[in-house]
Amino acid sequence: MFKGGKDMNEYSVIGKPFPRIDSRLQATGQARFAADFVLPRMLFGKILRSPYPHARILNIDTRRAEKLPGVKAVITGKDTPQIKYGFFRSGMDRPLLPADKVRFIGDNVAAVAAIDEDIAEEALDLIKVEYEELPAVFDPEEAMKEGAPRIHDFAERNIATERHWNFGDVEKGFKESHYVREDRFATQVTVHGYIEPHACLASYDSSGKLTVWANTQVPFLLRRDLARTLDMPYHKVRVIKPHVGGGFGGKILLIGLEYCASLLSKKTGLPVKIVYSMREDLSFGNRRVPQVYHLKTGVKKDGTLVAQYAKVICDSGAFIGPGPLTAYNTGLAFMEPYRLPNFKMDLYRAYTNKVFCSPQRGHGQIQTRFAVDLQLDMIAEELGLDPMEVRAKNALQTGEVTVSGLRIISSGLPEAIEKAAEMSEWKKKRGKLRHLNRGLGMACSGFPCGAMLTAQSDSAATVELTEDGKAIVLTGASDIGQGINTIAAQIVAEVLGLTIDDVTVLAADTEVTPYDPGSFSSRVTFYAGNAIKLAAEDVRNQLATVAAKRLVVSPEHLQFRDGCVSIKYSPERKLPFAEVVRAAQMSGPEGKIIIGRGSFWPRNAEWPDPVTFAGNASGSWSFSAQVAEVEVDKETGQVKVLKVSMADDCGYPLNPLLAQGQMEGSVSMGQGHAMFEDLRIEDGRVINPSFMDYRMPTALDAPREHESYDVITNDPVGPFGAKEVGEGFINASLPCIVNAIHDATGVWVKELPITPEKIVKALKEKGG
Amino acid sequence: MFKGGKDMNEYSVIGKPFPRIDSRLQATGQARFAADFVLPRMLFGKILRSPYPHARILNIDTRRAEKLPGVKAVITGKDTPQIKYGFFRSGMDRPLLPADKVRFIGDNVAAVAAIDEDIAEEALDLIKVEYEELPAVFDPEEAMKEGAPRIHDFAERNIATERHWNFGDVEKGFKESHYVREDRFATQVTVHGYIEPHACLASYDSSGKLTVWANTQVPFLLRRDLARTLDMPYHKVRVIKPHVGGGFGGKILLIGLEYCASLLSKKTGLPVKIVYSMREDLSFGNRRVPQVYHLKTGVKKDGTLVAQYAKVICDSGAFIGPGPLTAYNTGLAFMEPYRLPNFKMDLYRAYTNKVFCSPQRGHGQIQTRFAVDLQLDMIAEELGLDPMEVRAKNALQTGEVTVSGLRIISSGLPEAIEKAAEMSEWKKKRGKLRHLNRGLGMACSGFPCGAMLTAQSDSAATVELTEDGKAIVLTGASDIGQGINTIAAQIVAEVLGLTIDDVTVLAADTEVTPYDPGSFSSRVTFYAGNAIKLAAEDVRNQLATVAAKRLVVSPEHLQFRDGCVSIKYSPERKLPFAEVVRAAQMSGPEGKIIIGRGSFWPRNAEWPDPVTFAGNASGSWSFSAQVAEVEVDKETGQVKVLKVSMADDCGYPLNPLLAQGQMEGSVSMGQGHAMFEDLRIEDGRVINPSFMDYRMPTALDAPREHESYDVITNDPVGPFGAKEVGEGFINASLPCIVNAIHDATGVWVKELPITPEKIVKALKEKGG
Repeated sequence: MFKGGKDMNEYSVIGKPFPRIDSRLQATGQARFAADFVLPRMLFGKILRSPYPHARILNIDTRRAEKLPGVKAVITGKDTPQIKYGFFRSGMDRPLLPADKVRFIGDNVAAVAAIDEDIAEEALDLIKVEYEELPAVFDPEEAMKEGAPRIHDFAERNIATERHWNFGDVEKGFKESHYVREDRFATQVTVHGYIEPHACLASYDSSGKLTVWANTQVPFLLRRDLARTLDMPYHKVRVIKPHVGGGFGGKILLIGLEYCASLLSKKTGLPVKIVYSMREDLSFGNRRVPQVYHLKTGVKKDGTLVAQYAKVICDSGAFIGPGPLTAYNTGLAFMEPYRLPNFKMDLYRAYTNKVFCSPQRGHGQIQTRFAVDLQLDMIAEELGLDPMEVRAKNALQTGEVTVSGLRIISSGLPEAIEKAAEMSEWKKKRGKLRHLNRGLGMACSGFPCGAMLTAQSDSAATVELTEDGKAIVLTGASDIGQGINTIAAQIVAEVLGLTIDDVTVLAADTEVTPYDPGSFSSRVTFYAGNAIKLAAEDVRNQLATVAAKRLVVSPEHLQFRDGCVSIKYSPERKLPFAEVVRAAQMSGPEGKIIIGRGSFWPRNAEWPDPVTFAGNASGSWSFSAQVAEVEVDKETGQVKVLKVSMADDCGYPLNPLLAQGQMEGSVSMGQGHAMFEDLRIEDGRVINPSFMDYRMPTALDAPREHESYDVITNDPVGPFGAKEVGEGFINASLPCIVNAIHDATGVWVKELPITPEKIVKALKEKGG
Repeated sequence: MFKGGKDMNEYSVIGKPFPRIDSRLQATGQARFAADFVLPRMLFGKILRSPYPHARILNIDTRRAEKLPGVKAVITGKDTPQIKYGFFRSGMDRPLLPADKVRFIGDNVAAVAAIDEDIAEEALDLIKVEYEELPAVFDPEEAMKEGAPRIHDFAERNIATERHWNFGDVEKGFKESHYVREDRFATQVTVHGYIEPHACLASYDSSGKLTVWANTQVPFLLRRDLARTLDMPYHKVRVIKPHVGGGFGGKILLIGLEYCASLLSKKTGLPVKIVYSMREDLSFGNRRVPQVYHLKTGVKKDGTLVAQYAKVICDSGAFIGPGPLTAYNTGLAFMEPYRLPNFKMDLYRAYTNKVFCSPQRGHGQIQTRFAVDLQLDMIAEELGLDPMEVRAKNALQTGEVTVSGLRIISSGLPEAIEKAAEMSEWKKKRGKLRHLNRGLGMACSGFPCGAMLTAQSDSAATVELTEDGKAIVLTGASDIGQGINTIAAQIVAEVLGLTIDDVTVLAADTEVTPYDPGSFSSRVTFYAGNAIKLAAEDVRNQLATVAAKRLVVSPEHLQFRDGCVSIKYSPERKLPFAEVVRAAQMSGPEGKIIIGRGSFWPRNAEWPDPVTFAGNASGSWSFSAQVAEVEVDKETGQVKVLKVSMADDCGYPLNPLLAQGQMEGSVSMGQGHAMFEDLRIEDGRVINPSFMDYRMPTALDAPREHESYDVITNDPVGPFGAKEVGEGFINASLPCIVNAIHDATGVWVKELPITPEKIVKALKEKGG
C-alpha cells in the first residue's frame, strides 16, 4: 500500500498503518452519536416546514398545538430575535426561523417540544399557518432576469455572489493559441451521503448556560453561530461533538435544528432533542451547488495551456450558504493543478426557491475539474496528442508561482502522472481497447490545505501528562470519521517517543478543548496536526531540561524514543519516560505540572486580495493523478469500473491506512457523482429523498481493483511533511471515469451524471 | 460582615460577597449529582458486606445469584488482582474486595450488577458465604496487648502508626515550670454529616477506557487509586466530579463502591451505578478517629507555656486510612496556635475490628485542640489568671519560628483574640454570669494551608478566551460545596478586569482539567487559587503585548479594569477587552490562540523531616479566636449557645460571604461535636446509623447570634493575601463551647460529647 518515497524507519509511529483508535468503539456500537444522548426529563422536538417554495407568512396559530397534552412549547419566528445567520459576515441572509416569509419547500416555520416524538409530530399537524403564495423561480438564469420574483429584498436580480477574475491577458492568449475550443458543461445536485442524519440535544439550565451535543464538523463555529443567533455570550454556549457518522461538508452550516432545539430548551428549561430522519435530511438539508460552465480554452500545438475563459452560473438555492468561498474555489481550480498563464472568469451565483447549497467534498472545485479535465481530453483528441503527456506538460512543479500568486512549495504531480500511467499500463492500453468496449481515462487535481477565506484563526492544542507518564492531548479538531483523533495520537506519540496507545485524545468540546475552526477545507491535519505537534514539542522541551539535569548533558543532545529519554550519541544512557515525568511533576517543591501548548497558522499563506483574489491562499497544495479503466456495455449503457490507479502527493502519509481510505472513498464518491447520483428537484420539491431512489455506489459498483502509490514530497510546512489527502483527490476521481468512458465509447457526455440512458443516446447519435 | 482590614476598593471583584455561582443550579434542582447520571443500558450495583467484625472467608457460592434473571454479573475477591489500597504508599493495607478475610462489620465481600436495584438486592441474599469467625478486638489499648487477635499479618501488636516527637527538652521544661498538671481527655467517633451519600457511575468501554462519575473530593487521586487497584494505566481512567453534596474529608478515601462499580462495568461491558443509602454510608463509611490524650502541661506563674507531654492513643479501625497524616496533624496542633518551647509526644494508632477512619474537617487537630484549650482554662483557673490573657500571652506572632520549625509568615492571632474578647464583652461577662447559669469560653486555632504530607504536586490551571472576549478557566480543583468554583471565577475576573459573569469555570475532570491533588488539608484556595491566578496573569501578559502595540505604550503601563485595557497614567486611552482578544487571536497570520497556564506550589514550604517531623510543612498558617456564650439548664443539663464571637485571620477573605459560611458551618459542626454527635459502635456494629439517632445540630440548636470579624494579614504567599478558612476554624469552635459550659457551671467534662446527662452527673458530683 505504501510504496516509494522515504525510508519509513526514520519514524516509529508516524507513517505506520494504524487502524482508527475509535474504530473498535464504533464497531461494537459503544460509540455515542448525537442521537444517543439522553438527559433526565428530556423533551423531543420536531420542526414544521413550509410546503411552498415561496410564500409570505400571514399568520401562525399555535393555540391548538399548545393545548395538546404532552406539548411543552411551540416556537415560531415571533419568538426569535430574527438575527440573520450566514457562514460569512458578508452573507447573513437567513433567519433560522423566519417571521416574514418562506423561501423554499422545507424552510422552517415553527417547532414543537413534547414529551415524546409522536405527540410532537401530532402537534405539528395542529399548527395552522396562513400563507400568501408568491411566484417562485427555480432556474438561476431565469432568476437573474429582470422582473423575476425577488427572493431577498437586498438581492438585485437575485444575485447572491458575483465574481470576476482576470489574470494575465486572455484575449491576447486566445490570439496566440494554436487551437481554441468552447464547450458547455453542467454538473448536477448531489448530496453528501453521510450515513448519520443531523441530530442534536440542547440543554439550557437556570445558570444561563446552554450545552449542545451536535453532529457538527465545526463545534467552535456552531458555538459562534448559536451565540450570535440566540444573542448569548460565547462562554455561555458549550458545543460538544460526539462521534459523527460522516459530514463531507454537510454538517458545517446551520440548518435549523440546533437553533430550534436550543430555543425550545431555553423556553422550557428542559433538555430538547431533535433528530432528523434521513428523508428530512435529504429533502430539506443542504447539498452541492450545481454549476454550468461555458468554457473556452486555448492551447499551443503541443497542448500547452495558453488561456482559459469561463462563464459559470451557480444555483445557490434560497440562501447564499458558503457562496463566496465556493466561488473562490471554483476559480482556484483553474489555477491548479495545471499551469495557466491567462485566465478570466465571470461567475454568477443566483438565489432560487430551492434547498440551499453547502460545501461538499471537493468544494466548488470538482465542478471545474470536470469541465477542464474533460475538455483537455477533447483538445488532446483534436490535436492527436496523448492526454497524459498533455497533463505532464502542463503540470505545476515545485517552486512555481501561478499567475494568481499561488506558491507551489511542493508538487509531486509530475511523478504522480508518471506513476498513474505506469500502474494503469497507460501506454499499452489507452486508446487501444475500444474494440473490447474498454477504455482508460486520466485526470489530475490540486487542492489547498485549508483555504484562507475559511480559516478565522490558528488551530490550537494542549498536551498534558499523567503521573504514570502517559499523555492526554486536548484538541479542538473535529473527527467526523476521517481519523484526525488517530493522527493526533500518532503525532504526540512520535514526538514524545511513546506508543499510540499511550496517548488519550480528547477533542472538539468548545468548553474544554483549545480553539479550532473545525473540519473543512482540508485544513485539519495541516493546521491542527501542526498545533498538536507544537504542543507535544513544548512538553518534550520542558521534560528535556529535567532529564538533561539527571543525565548531565545539555537538552539538545537528548532524544525521546521507545518510552525513554536517552542521549543521542550514547543511547544506553537513558531514563524511562515515566520517571522523567514523575521527576518533572511530582517531586514536590522542585516540581511543576507540565502543560504543552501549540497554536498554528501557516505563516507563508496570505489572504487573497479582496478585489483580484490573487494571493497564496494556502500554506501548501496537494496533488494527485488518477487513471480509471472502464468497460461499457454499448447495448445497455452500463459502465463497470475495472480499475483505478491512484497516485497521490499528500506530502507524507502520516497513516497510510487512513490515507488509502480517503483515496478509495474519493474514488467511490467520484464514481457516484460521475455515473449515478442526482438529486431531482421538481418545482422546488425533492422527489427522490431516499437512498433507494437517490442512487449511491454500493460495494457491488466499486472498482474491481485499486492500485495506489504515495508520492513523497515532504512538504516543508505540513506536520512531518504532510498535506491534505481527504478532499482534493475526488476532483480527479470524477473526470478520469468520464474520460475513460469516452476512451471506451468515443462519445462525450457533458452533463452529469453520465447515466446509461445518456450513453446509449450519445452512441445512437454518433452512430447515426 | 466584613469589618476592619484594608480598603476593599483596591479590588473590583475580589473581596466582594458574591453568592456561589452554582447556587441557582443547586437551588432549582438542575445541578446534577453523581446519582443523577444515567447511561443507556445502565446496570445497578449492590455490595454484599460482612456480618462479622473478624472472620476468615472459607467459600463464596455465587451460583444462585448468577442464575437470578436480571443479574448480569457477580464479583468476589477472586475476580480482583487483590492489589492493596491505601491513601499513602506507606500504608497499603486494604484489598477493596478481600479474598482472604473480613476485618469489620461491613467489609466488602461481593458485589452484584443487575438490571434494577431490587434484583441486585435480591441477588445479594442468594450469595452464600461460609465464614470462620475469628476473635475480634474493638479497643485500641486492648488491641496493642500481647496475644490480642492479629488483624493484619504485618502489624505487630496491631499498631498501624506510631509517632514519637521530641522538641526542646520536656523534662527540663517541667522542672522549670511553676505549675504542672495532668489530665485525660477523650474524643468520640463522629461522622462527616454530608447530605449526599456516596454514589458513582462507572462505564468501561471496548476501547479499554473507564469513565467514572463520582462524588469525590479528589478526582485525580481517585484516578490514581482506581488505576492502581484495577491495574490500568492512568490515562485510560477518567474521573468526573459532578456537583457534590458535601465531603468534609469523608469523600477522599476509597470505600469500595467506585472500585466495585468499575470492576462490574469491566466485566459486563455496561455502565454500572452504585448509590449508597444514608444507612449504608453511616454504617460502613469512614469517620473521625477517636483519640485519648494523657496530657501533661507545665507553665510559668503567668501562664506562659513551658512544656507539654502527650501520650495519644488512636483507634484506627480495620485499616490505616490516612493514619500517618492524622498523627502528624495531631502533633502539629501542639505547635500552633500557641508558642511551645518544649514538646514530647508518644502516639499510637492501633487497628481494631471496626469501621476505619478518614480525614474529617479539623483533621487530627480538633482532638488536640479540645485537650489543650480545655486544659489551658483549667490551668488559668488554678493560677487565677484570665484564660484570654493567657492565650494572648502564648499566641504565635508574625515572624516567629516554632521549635518544630514552622515559619509563621503572617499571624493575626493577637488581634483575633482582642477582637473576639471585644465582640463578646469578655471582660464584662466572663466569670461573672454563673449566677445566671451563663458563661463564656474562649479557644484559638491555627491551621496549615495544605500540609505537605498530603500534597503530591502543584495545582495547575489553564485559562482560555472566547472570540467575544470572555474567559474559560480549567482547574482540577474540586468544588464540594465550599465554593472554589466561585473563587476561581473571581480571581480570573479580577486579573483580567472582567465581571464574575464573564468567566466560565470548568473543573475537576481528570481528562480535561490540569492536575490538582484535590480538596483536602485546606489547600484549595491557597494552591489552586494561586495556580488560577498565575494562569490568568499569563493570559493578561500575552494580551498586554498586543494591546501595548495598539496603544503605543510599553506593556507594564497597562491595566485591565472594567472590561477595558487602559494606560495607567491616562486611563482614557483604552481598548475594550474583547477588541484586544480579537486582535490577539482572530487577526489571521498575526494571530495566535492564547492559552494561559499556571502551576503553583508554595516554595517556602518544606517536607517535614521523616524522623523528627520538624520543618515548615505549609506555605502559610491561618489563625482564629472564638468566644462562645452559653446558658445551661442545671436541672436538665441542656445547653443553649447564645452567641459565638468569631475573629478569623484567613489572610484576606476573597469572598466574605463564603468565608462567613465556612465560619458559621464550623461553629455548627463544632457545637455538634461538643454537645451531641456520637456514633455508637457496640461489638463492632454501628447502632445509630441514621440522622434520627445520630444527632446533628439543627437550625433550632444554632447559636442565637454570630458576630464575626475578619483580621486582614494579607499573607505574602496566598492568592491576593488569602489563607485557608474552611477547616482550621472548627478547631476553636469545639473547645470554646466546652470552656463556656465550665464558666457557666463550674464543672469539667473531659470526654466528648458533653451530653446533658454528663453535665447533670458532674454537677451532682461537684455538689456532693
